[in-house]
Amino acid sequence: MAKIIRPTLVVDKEVCLRNIEKMAQKAAEHKMRFRPHFKTHQSARIAEWFKLFGVDAITVSSVRMAEYFAANSWTDITLAFPVNILEIENINRLAANIKLNVLVENKEAATVLAEKISHPLGVYLEIDTGYNRTGISSSKTNTMNSVINLISKNTKLTFKGFLTHTGHTYEAKSTNEIFSRHFDALLKLRSLKQKYIKDFPNIEISMGDTPSASICTTFGGVDEIRPGNFAFYDLMQQNLGICKMEDIAVRMICPVVSKHLSRNEIVVYGGAVHISKDSIINSNGKKMYGRIVIRKNGEKKLLGPLNYVSNLSQEHGTLKVTQNQFENFQVGDLVEIIPVHSCLTANLSGYYQTTDGEMIKMMPRY
Amino acid sequence: MAKIIRPTLVVDKEVCLRNIEKMAQKAAEHKMRFRPHFKTHQSARIAEWFKLFGVDAITVSSVRMAEYFAANSWTDITLAFPVNILEIENINRLAANIKLNVLVENKEAATVLAEKISHPLGVYLEIDTGYNRTGISSSKTNTMNSVINLISKNTKLTFKGFLTHTGHTYEAKSTNEIFSRHFDALLKLRSLKQKYIKDFPNIEISMGDTPSASICTTFGGVDEIRPGNFAFYDLMQQNLGICKMEDIAVRMICPVVSKHLSRNEIVVYGGAVHISKDSIINSNGKKMYGRIVIRKNGEKKLLGPLNYVSNLSQEHGTLKVTQNQFENFQVGDLVEIIPVHSCLTANLSGYYQTTDGEMIKMMPRY
Repeated sequence: MAKIIRPTLVVDKEVCLRNIEKMAQKAAEHKMRFRPHFKTHQSARIAEWFKLFGVDAITVSSVRMAEYFAANSWTDITLAFPVNILEIENINRLAANIKLNVLVENKEAATVLAEKISHPLGVYLEIDTGYNRTGISSSKTNTMNSVINLISKNTKLTFKGFLTHTGHTYEAKSTNEIFSRHFDALLKLRSLKQKYIKDFPNIEISMGDTPSASICTTFGGVDEIRPGNFAFYDLMQQNLGICKMEDIAVRMICPVVSKHLSRNEIVVYGGAVHISKDSIINSNGKKMYGRIVIRKNGEKKLLGPLNYVSNLSQEHGTLKVTQNQFENFQVGDLVEIIPVHSCLTANLSGYYQTTDGEMIKMMPRY
Repeated sequence: MAKIIRPTLVVDKEVCLRNIEKMAQKAAEHKMRFRPHFKTHQSARIAEWFKLFGVDAITVSSVRMAEYFAANSWTDITLAFPVNILEIENINRLAANIKLNVLVENKEAATVLAEKISHPLGVYLEIDTGYNRTGISSSKTNTMNSVINLISKNTKLTFKGFLTHTGHTYEAKSTNEIFSRHFDALLKLRSLKQKYIKDFPNIEISMGDTPSASICTTFGGVDEIRPGNFAFYDLMQQNLGICKMEDIAVRMICPVVSKHLSRNEIVVYGGAVHISKDSIINSNGKKMYGRIVIRKNGEKKLLGPLNYVSNLSQEHGTLKVTQNQFENFQVGDLVEIIPVHSCLTANLSGYYQTTDGEMIKMMPRY
């Protein structure tokens, strides 16, 4: 492994491959298409790891990301974001070259698509199943009918079915609540499919945030799942009961630069521009930005939750540690930070170092 | 101005130049060296704007940033971060080519510097004046003496004086509290300088976070100031009473993609990976991630604080708006988001578009 001298995002390839394999198997068992979301890793090289498990259809969150993966030979892409009509020219260029699907959730965007699309494009109706971010509420069939009518005006547009992101599973207080939110969303989409399938016999149901895709077992009627975060997982998922600590595939390696015994704090080079400011509430009621792994007597050791990243400024990370761990940190040591939200941590890094020494680039920023 | 179709960070060059000029004048009036912190903009092109006001010495927050600006002809750089001894080889290469200063705040780092430095290097003692992040507490003269002794062992190292970051001004509840925290820090550094100047006649005092540099007027004995954020300012500074809304020089332009009347919400393409998750508390007691400027009848209009960015996911920004503003947003419109913390927003972007149409790149990520 290359010598690390500054904050470096390391991905454990073995853990990541295991996470991908497990999710691919689950999709296969339930006869669902596995269309993983690539916004988590944003890397053409890591994308190849998914091919090992038969993945040939993917999800992205921006036109730029679709362009990047299309340029890296991915030819079946769903852009899971309410279509941004200002990017219609880019969408046309993409649709000329690959199988592209977009989401529509309002008449304005459907109107522009119907007027301006120049190549075959799949269109999913985005359904809001309770997350209250985007999507047509599952009860608003009038709006759905209007949008479907607009789509049907241009034969280049194909109504593909109903897609939801059950993002409110992230706010669940228990795994039971995740089960029930997922199942509620599934029932809503099944009922919509049943209603519209007479007129559109090929429509599908697309679901699958990481929490529900990871732990739920009821997928009857679901045609595809689109989880993304599961490839890396993170503390937020572990805290929700979605994964085990050993399933988390990424760590930010940070040098220790400062120690303050009077307040039991260690300062590392590794701040908000490396780790990101998403936090969870620690067992002591305080904000936590990461857990800590140290190396002691040649062995890696995950420290208890009262040793944690307690504060982040631009380049500084403050670790609150217990008194008996304080002397296990020395200036010049490298510590590993397990991130709270791996998608945002990866997005900041721009590259990964793998556990077997490869340097992997991500999508460029512009 | 180039057509904007996706989240784009726009810098108002006129406002930025005005902010730089004002701070340069203030430093000159108080006979202080103006050594601005370039971590806010991270751009060699914006760095040139500072040269217009006589700036030739700068502050950075990482070795990589020092390397980037040194490669862009800056020759007098203070690396205002506790020295990371793992980067000693890079520090030696830099010190061979430019006037470089670093911060030391512990014996371990001082020992390594004294052993391994190969070229002239300036060393500031970082003093903790109450922020409690890094630095030697101003009362710990024993530690200071040990560090100074270690530094003095290698004639390539020059003890330059005392430096502090009064970052607790950001947590002040009033501008009066900012005045008093700044003044308290100043008294601590003046007393240290007085104590050590007999043995080190050239030592200096370096201060100047953006809040105190912007509004304080007492700088007797301060040799240089190092503010950074003032070039752009942001909502956090405006909220603290440090700047006016019209002093904020950066805005993230975002396309509207979705409208939800039932909850008075607008969704834009522009999320945590564009705006960053730093927040302040809005007048309604909720977290706010940005204020909103719209264009109405050809005029720009800053909306009241009850129209604000209320939530961010990876690519989505949710705007909570008042009922009477709701219809002023149309799908496909561009809205301007005033960021809460411009340093983190800029860091995510990687580039700027200026109000006069220039595309400005930032330091690459690796």
